[in-house]
Amino acid sequence: MRTLLAMRAGIDTYQQPVVYMRADCDVCRAEGFEAQAQVELVARGRHVLAILHRVNDGWLPADRIGLSEVAWQMLQARDGEEVVVRHPPLLDSLRHLRTKVHGGRLDYPGLRALMEDVSRNRLSDIHLAAFVTACAGGRLDIDETVALTRAMVDVGERLDWPATPVMDKHCVGGLPGNRTTLLVVPIVTACGVLMPKTSSRAITSPAGTADTMETLAPVALEMGAVRRVVEREGGCIAWGGAMQLSPADDVLIRVERPLDLDSEGQLVASILSKKAAVGAQRVLIDMPVGPTAKVRTAEAAQSLSRGLAAAGAALGLQVRTLLTDGTQPVGRGIGPALEAMDVMAVLQRRPDAPQDLRERALMLAGLLLEMADKAAPGQGLELARQVLDDGRALRKFVAICEAQGGLREPRHAACSHVVTAHVGGRVAAIDNRLIARAAKLAGAPRDPAAGAVLHVHVGDTVEPRQPLYTLHAESPGELAYALSFLQAQLPVVDVREPVSAP
Amino acid sequence: MRTLLAMRAGIDTYQQPVVYMRADCDVCRAEGFEAQAQVELVARGRHVLAILHRVNDGWLPADRIGLSEVAWQMLQARDGEEVVVRHPPLLDSLRHLRTKVHGGRLDYPGLRALMEDVSRNRLSDIHLAAFVTACAGGRLDIDETVALTRAMVDVGERLDWPATPVMDKHCVGGLPGNRTTLLVVPIVTACGVLMPKTSSRAITSPAGTADTMETLAPVALEMGAVRRVVEREGGCIAWGGAMQLSPADDVLIRVERPLDLDSEGQLVASILSKKAAVGAQRVLIDMPVGPTAKVRTAEAAQSLSRGLAAAGAALGLQVRTLLTDGTQPVGRGIGPALEAMDVMAVLQRRPDAPQDLRERALMLAGLLLEMADKAAPGQGLELARQVLDDGRALRKFVAICEAQGGLREPRHAACSHVVTAHVGGRVAAIDNRLIARAAKLAGAPRDPAAGAVLHVHVGDTVEPRQPLYTLHAESPGELAYALSFLQAQLPVVDVREPVSAP
Repeated sequence: MRTLLAMRAGIDTYQQPVVYMRADCDVCRAEGFEAQAQVELVARGRHVLAILHRVNDGWLPADRIGLSEVAWQMLQARDGEEVVVRHPPLLDSLRHLRTKVHGGRLDYPGLRALMEDVSRNRLSDIHLAAFVTACAGGRLDIDETVALTRAMVDVGERLDWPATPVMDKHCVGGLPGNRTTLLVVPIVTACGVLMPKTSSRAITSPAGTADTMETLAPVALEMGAVRRVVEREGGCIAWGGAMQLSPADDVLIRVERPLDLDSEGQLVASILSKKAAVGAQRVLIDMPVGPTAKVRTAEAAQSLSRGLAAAGAALGLQVRTLLTDGTQPVGRGIGPALEAMDVMAVLQRRPDAPQDLRERALMLAGLLLEMADKAAPGQGLELARQVLDDGRALRKFVAICEAQGGLREPRHAACSHVVTAHVGGRVAAIDNRLIARAAKLAGAPRDPAAGAVLHVHVGDTVEPRQPLYTLHAESPGELAYALSFLQAQLPVVDVREPVSAP
Repeated sequence: MRTLLAMRAGIDTYQQPVVYMRADCDVCRAEGFEAQAQVELVARGRHVLAILHRVNDGWLPADRIGLSEVAWQMLQARDGEEVVVRHPPLLDSLRHLRTKVHGGRLDYPGLRALMEDVSRNRLSDIHLAAFVTACAGGRLDIDETVALTRAMVDVGERLDWPATPVMDKHCVGGLPGNRTTLLVVPIVTACGVLMPKTSSRAITSPAGTADTMETLAPVALEMGAVRRVVEREGGCIAWGGAMQLSPADDVLIRVERPLDLDSEGQLVASILSKKAAVGAQRVLIDMPVGPTAKVRTAEAAQSLSRGLAAAGAALGLQVRTLLTDGTQPVGRGIGPALEAMDVMAVLQRRPDAPQDLRERALMLAGLLLEMADKAAPGQGLELARQVLDDGRALRKFVAICEAQGGLREPRHAACSHVVTAHVGGRVAAIDNRLIARAAKLAGAPRDPAAGAVLHVHVGDTVEPRQPLYTLHAESPGELAYALSFLQAQLPVVDVREPVSAP
């Protein structure tokens, strides 16, 4: 057993565990470890896989192993304790990965072995990227999708609830600002229906529901905390990643984000594995369709709906999909804090609250109330409207926030820049992808206050030099980065000059 | 322009450039850089993309940027000089990558843009892994393969030669110990035929031709050096990677190695781009076929041959493919130094020289002499045999080594372990993949002396406890690692007890 003494290196490597060892230390020499090798660390029964960077001199003594911040946390290391450093176990699951990469099909045991190793962080970024790519472009059929979903559920934790039905909703995404969950959950739970909602952080978008909620209340709740909040309030809006509900999916997101990719099979497995793990029984899927949304055509929407329904049925979930208008962003804000401000305006029934966000949330909440047998068919919308308008939804939202750790105020960003119209005319289109990309380059969701605020909607008439949208960033460099991107693109907001009559 | 002062961090991160900046430095704060972000470094007109690791305290002053060894070399940095640190340029080529990942087809301009960015090291490992995976499993058609080959050639350097014909050979690989190039080049060039051979280092095998040659002579020759060696001796055996002949391919290998993957289209492009770039006109491909070789079936061999011929024709290359026996390793040694010893034994016509290696090399050299019009059809083999047996091939090999920088002696490894037969009987099969895997786990090709030596061939009769093969490693840890792998597998050498007559 080769050991070195743990030392906190004070180096932030984000989610990739890195360790530092002297090139001339006993362990490197005995084990033949080279730079960029994968090594397994063992201390007090904990195992962590890390990438080795070799230090030639200076700050690291030869009997020490330096741990990057994430490696230090994952190993729960203590300064000076002995850490065993050895070659990583050979992964049998890589055989299955190669099968898929070469165009073969995978069954449950193969996918289970892969998800087991993925969830334990045993695969490198290169292997993870190969897996998500090999499953993209329609290369995961429906049986494989069901097996992948089961495998994701089976390697994680599961919640169950005494009452029934347990409702859930999900938005397929691609539509900036579509933050209806923060409105739907309080409306539905205010009617006495269970809705233990877990959401993800952004994968490829400028804000995930968990990112937005986090600007208003703590979301990193562990399993026990979620149980307590839901027992008290009937619902929650928590980040799923803190709960190990679908830990394999949480790891895959790490490469899906830089690849800007989540493929159909992966998407179905990602969505439904979390619904099944959270104990949901009836699920409403909001699927925005539009030329610049994630789902671009009616055909793609049908295919994805079929996949969701089939995989849901195989898992014992009742899944209903609602195709919604995905032609332009919802509300005004794009980015965690800016979206949270829109949500609060709707809950507080302020006159300037974005009506499109309000109406979408009411429609979804109404359908959920009907699916939960709390309203007769066709009556859900009216019930939802009452609960929002008489203040019950706001009170429930505040109560949920308090139960999660306390309501707080979203912050404003340090820098901003207003983009104005070059010409007057009618707003013909708003590009969801470009505005989302600009919000991300400005720092969202990493900087919660960063993003964009739209001042117009499709169909509005604007004058020359009228503000179209404002970019918000925490640093001048990021603001400049987002603006330089936009200068090289087609306009985000397409203003068409009126054609004068002859 | 945000600048920091360069400092050599003394950290070996292998081929991945990493920079270290204080989390509280002006640049991190102004530009919003987080850990694991990609940053562009600019100094004296040089551009390098690197991954950022953020340092919290200690060894790095706030006005300094620490560079890992490879980042330091790529930037050709000097201590204390100003380095501009900024957001990387947005890569238009990622659009094409996404098209391929989603199952679309790519044309020359798209592949050219991708190879341009790949060759300049602008893509992260995650993007590279997605690209090679998206092209695997038959997802690159013949037109795309031709376009990819052209793109790889066009982003690199090209050699041309005054005389004609210029010959080349290539082995598709997967057959451990098949190191015929070191014999074929001296035989063919001793007959006055030009053969400027460049080879790669191992991708997924325990030794590439360049790795083996390097244990005998320097191979990291630049363009000018290759020209001088070939002008003097008519041939060379150099490492292609030092010459920027197909720099995109050299970068892709970085992820193909951990993925243990080179797919058909990628393989054709990789092989032919280097042949075209080196100025070859007539190319002989040695394609070993066997159940544990890289090419497993006659059908796969036909498909790959067609791809090579079609892409070759499109590039103006005459390509001839020879299917050879791929059922067991060639020679005895597996690993750079151990293979080099086999080659020297053949050249020196020692009685213990491996005859199978000798005969394969003569067959290939004979065909090349016929393709070069130096021998009439059917007469090449006899000419090759004369040149080897009368010592001209050895003299030419020594001359080439001297021209490349001097002949040297391969080293022996520090540790070894002999694996013996459990039972007596006949050797029914030897698994190419398992023996190659064991040689790699023992340290090959990173440790040139590591690997395996086979003591038997298929068809031999062995006694119980007779040595089957010996593993060689530079450290006890690696030896143990290779042995623990083998214990969990089917036997590398399959010895069948004779069935006694009733």
